[in-house]
Parts: sequence; structure tokens; C-alpha cells
Amino acid sequence: MVEDSTQVRVVEVGPRDGLQNESDVIRTSAKVEFIQRLVKSGLKAIETTSFVRPDRVPQMADAAEVMRTLGPGNGVDYITLVPNEKGLQLALQAGVKHIALFTGASEQFTRKNINMTIDESLDRFDRVAERARGEGVSIRGYVSCCFGCPYQGHVEEDVVVRVAERLLKAGCYEVSYGDTIGVAVPTQVASLSRRLVEGFGAETVAMHLHDTRGTALANVVRALDEGVRTFDASAAGLGGCPYAPGASGNLATEDLLYLLHGMGYETGVRLEDVIEASRYLSEVIGRLPPGRVFRAMTASK
Amino acid sequence: MVEDSTQVRVVEVGPRDGLQNESDVIRTSAKVEFIQRLVKSGLKAIETTSFVRPDRVPQMADAAEVMRTLGPGNGVDYITLVPNEKGLQLALQAGVKHIALFTGASEQFTRKNINMTIDESLDRFDRVAERARGEGVSIRGYVSCCFGCPYQGHVEEDVVVRVAERLLKAGCYEVSYGDTIGVAVPTQVASLSRRLVEGFGAETVAMHLHDTRGTALANVVRALDEGVRTFDASAAGLGGCPYAPGASGNLATEDLLYLLHGMGYETGVRLEDVIEASRYLSEVIGRLPPGRVFRAMTASK
Repeated sequence: MVEDSTQVRVVEVGPRDGLQNESDVIRTSAKVEFIQRLVKSGLKAIETTSFVRPDRVPQMADAAEVMRTLGPGNGVDYITLVPNEKGLQLALQAGVKHIALFTGASEQFTRKNINMTIDESLDRFDRVAERARGEGVSIRGYVSCCFGCPYQGHVEEDVVVRVAERLLKAGCYEVSYGDTIGVAVPTQVASLSRRLVEGFGAETVAMHLHDTRGTALANVVRALDEGVRTFDASAAGLGGCPYAPGASGNLATEDLLYLLHGMGYETGVRLEDVIEASRYLSEVIGRLPPGRVFRAMTASK
Repeated sequence: MVEDSTQVRVVEVGPRDGLQNESDVIRTSAKVEFIQRLVKSGLKAIETTSFVRPDRVPQMADAAEVMRTLGPGNGVDYITLVPNEKGLQLALQAGVKHIALFTGASEQFTRKNINMTIDESLDRFDRVAERARGEGVSIRGYVSCCFGCPYQGHVEEDVVVRVAERLLKAGCYEVSYGDTIGVAVPTQVASLSRRLVEGFGAETVAMHLHDTRGTALANVVRALDEGVRTFDASAAGLGGCPYAPGASGNLATEDLLYLLHGMGYETGVRLEDVIEASRYLSEVIGRLPPGRVFRAMTASK
């Protein structure tokens, strides 16, 4: 059954996915202020940080401090990315209640990115998920490269569906399907969305679309047509595509909200307040992020 | 009847609409080279220049020379913008066979932009069109601000339809409906497209969408759903939005082609060759235009 609700849930990924590739390390207090401003906009799910190796991702070295400073979510899910058992251990010590675990739908991407086959990655996923469930932590799944891969090109829809099934069996409350390099076109997104909504229910499906080729909102429209009601987005489009420096990456939260509200969907999020959060962060990083609504609104002022 | 053809016609507006707001005047030979490269890509309709007052738009002062240097189209329609009888006279002297005439669907925009009411503008349209028809010149109509206006905000769909009817009666072979400030959302575009296709036939409808808020391709998808098969676009997204400096304006031809080809539509245009034309022009203007596919493709090289 296709969901016909006008309620859409937006998962903000700016503080983690957006900032992780910033070359200058941002001070913890600025990250917390950014997150608190996003909370003020009405967002109820925010990816805040990741418990990864500080030598690999220095930008996220303050993960525990970010979470400690934020305190309890009070109705907002603070989601932290966790790559493995070690990361989970650190997240649990920091009192984290919501984690995101990731794998991919491209064999070559998974090998190059995390040095595992998809199946090895799924086994690790199961182990981390089991432990997290035992601790009462909720788990979001991420699948990278659902629509194309920088190494192998084509990605089979069947592989995405098979991976999704495993992640849901491992206890994920929802799975986020990433167009990691921003190559998806609406026909692809419609086809995959239909299979996922029919197979697993709309409530389990989140689309994580990139705007590298300007197609993100066109893809959102087709996902909406198929009943998808959860979308990831990053404030002002923070987070470039590492495979094409200078190009755009994440769909901007403001662009998504502009589209959704204009089409009559309700999100509970105030666009103006997200712009204010982005404006703050833009000053912190000393650069204008690529989000189009953000640029249009700030340019005209 | 909704058109279900997979053939889509792309009208390239970069050389005129894209370049007219460039502050530095581009030399005629570079404009001609840019246009010839666009022709090489397979584009069959290109807006090349405009016969406007040189003191108002110095960038287009070489209109006659551009047309003379280009020579006959040999199967490509070179469309030139003509604001009034004087412009038509100059265009006819330069041997122009295809002109574009414009008006708007917003009373306040038309007053501020061309100092006329919509009705006055339509009367002028009729006079210029009659003379052009008499000379065997084909006429394309442009309607500005079909989805929103920087001055009056809301624009009535009924006004757009009424203006369209007049332009078609005046002899336009097609009318291009502009989202001049890039505010349209897919529900609006679907609604207007349906009325226009049902009322006047898909062959008369062209959508001229802006990507100021990232919605252009989402709007294209909904227009396609309703049978629209002609879209205006500008190489690499040339042509900013004068109402929001620094923001994006025209939908980029490359982004449109990427979407259309990925969805299985045929355009007869080679994306790679349009990128080459944009790359040339980018060097001429010494700046990276905003088109997303253009940036992704050039950044990764």
C-alpha cells in the first residue's frame, strides 16, 4: 500500500555527514551551537557525530564531548555513526541511544571503503547490531551506492534489496538508501522505492539523495510518489562529494523543505530557522555552502 | 491527450539569456564560436542574441554581426529576441528567420520590466507578430513570471492561460512559460502543464525553468508527466537570477540532458559536446558557471 500521508520526516545529517570532510577542525562549542539551532528549527532526528578513529577522521575526534555537551535529546533523536564494535563501545560510554551502522550495495565500493566484501560487512553489522540491541540502542542502517558506484559503475537493484533485508533482520528501525555519488535519476529511484515500500513497508525506507547533478529533488518527487516519507538532508547542502571536489554533494535541507512545503507536505520544521542555523555554520567555516535556497535567501538580503 | 513520446526538444538559451547579464562584454567571435560548438552538440534551436537598445544591453550590441557571422542555420533555428517594432526591423535587416517576443503573466512585473500593463504588452505583441508573420518569420512567445513574481508574489494560473491564448492567436508556434525567479514547485508545474497541454496541445508548450531553489529538474519531471516535451535550458546554467545576485538562475542544459537521457528520453543532443561548449565559454568569462553536471564533470577531471 502506498503511503498517502502528507507528513514527511526529515533526518538532518549536516553535523556529521556534512562536516566530516571539512579540512579545518571545528571547535566543539560551535558544533553544539549548530546542532542546538537545528533542534530549534523543529528537526526531530539529527545525525550529530561519529565514533570513528580520531587519526582517520580528526574532525570527529570530539564525538564524546559533543554528545556529553548536548545532553539528553528530550524528544530529538541524536544519531551517531558507529563503524564497528570499538565505536559502539565508545558510543555506549558516551550515553548514546541512537546509532547508525553502514554498509554498501556495491562490492567494489565496500572493498575500497571499508576493506570488506558486502557479506563480511553484513556479518560485522549483525554483531554490532546485536550488542547495540542488547543495550537498548536503536539502530539506523545506511546503504551506500544504491544507484551507482564510482568504481564499478552499475549497481544491481537486487543487491540493494538483499542488503536491506539483512539490515532490517538485524534490527534496524529504518534503512537509509544513499545515492553516494549523486548519479540517480528519477526512474531508478521510483523503481527501487516501489520494491522497498512493497517489500518492507514505507516506514522502513529513508532516501539519502545527493544533488551532485541537480537531480536530488526530482528523485525526491518520485520517491514521494511511491510512498517514501523519510528523507536525509544536510543544512545548506554541507558535505561535498569526495569523488568530485568542488561539486555539490548532499541534498540541502532548505531545498528539501522548500519543495515539500510548497507541495503541501508537512514536516514540522521551520525553513527560516534552518537557514539561520546554516548561516551560523557558514560563518564558522568562513565559506558559503552550496544549498540553493540558502544562497537565494542570503543573496537577496 | 497526453504526449507519450520519448523525444524531447531542448531549446538552448545560453548565448542570449545566459550571457545578457555578463558584466564584461564578450567579443563577437567568442559568442559565435560558443554557438557553433552548441550546434555541434546536436542542438536544433538556439537563442543566439537580441535586437535590443545597445545603450540598455551593451552585451547584445553586436546582434547583427553575430547573425551575419553565423550565416544560415542549415537546419538549426537561430532564435533572436525582439522587444518591439524597432527590434524587429533590425532583425529583419540582419536576415533573421526566427524571433522570440515576450510578455509576462504578472501585472506588476510587466509594469516594472517593460512599463506596460499586460494588455498593453499584448497589443504591442500583436502588432510586432503581425508584421513578422508577413515577412515569413516564425515567432516564439515568452511569458515571464508564470509561477510567481518578485513584486506581487502570487500569479494566477488563469492569467497565464489567458496570455497564452493571445500569444497563440497572434501566431506563435510555441509559447515558453518562464519561472523567472525560480520559485515554482512540482504541483504548480503539473497543474499549469495539464491545462496548457489540454487547452492548446503539447506541441505548443515549452517550459523555461530556473534552478534558483534546486527545483528545476523536479519541475521538469512533473511537466514530462503531463506531456510537455520542450524545455529551455542554458549551457552550464549561464545566466544568474538578477533578483538574487550570486544565486543560480537558468536550468543548466547539461543537468537537463543528464536527467532526460537517464530516464530514457531522446534529445539528439550529445551531453559531452555541450560540456565542451560550456568549458570554452567558461574560459572566455574566466569563471565557473553554476551548472551541476558541468561542475561535477570538470571537477573530476
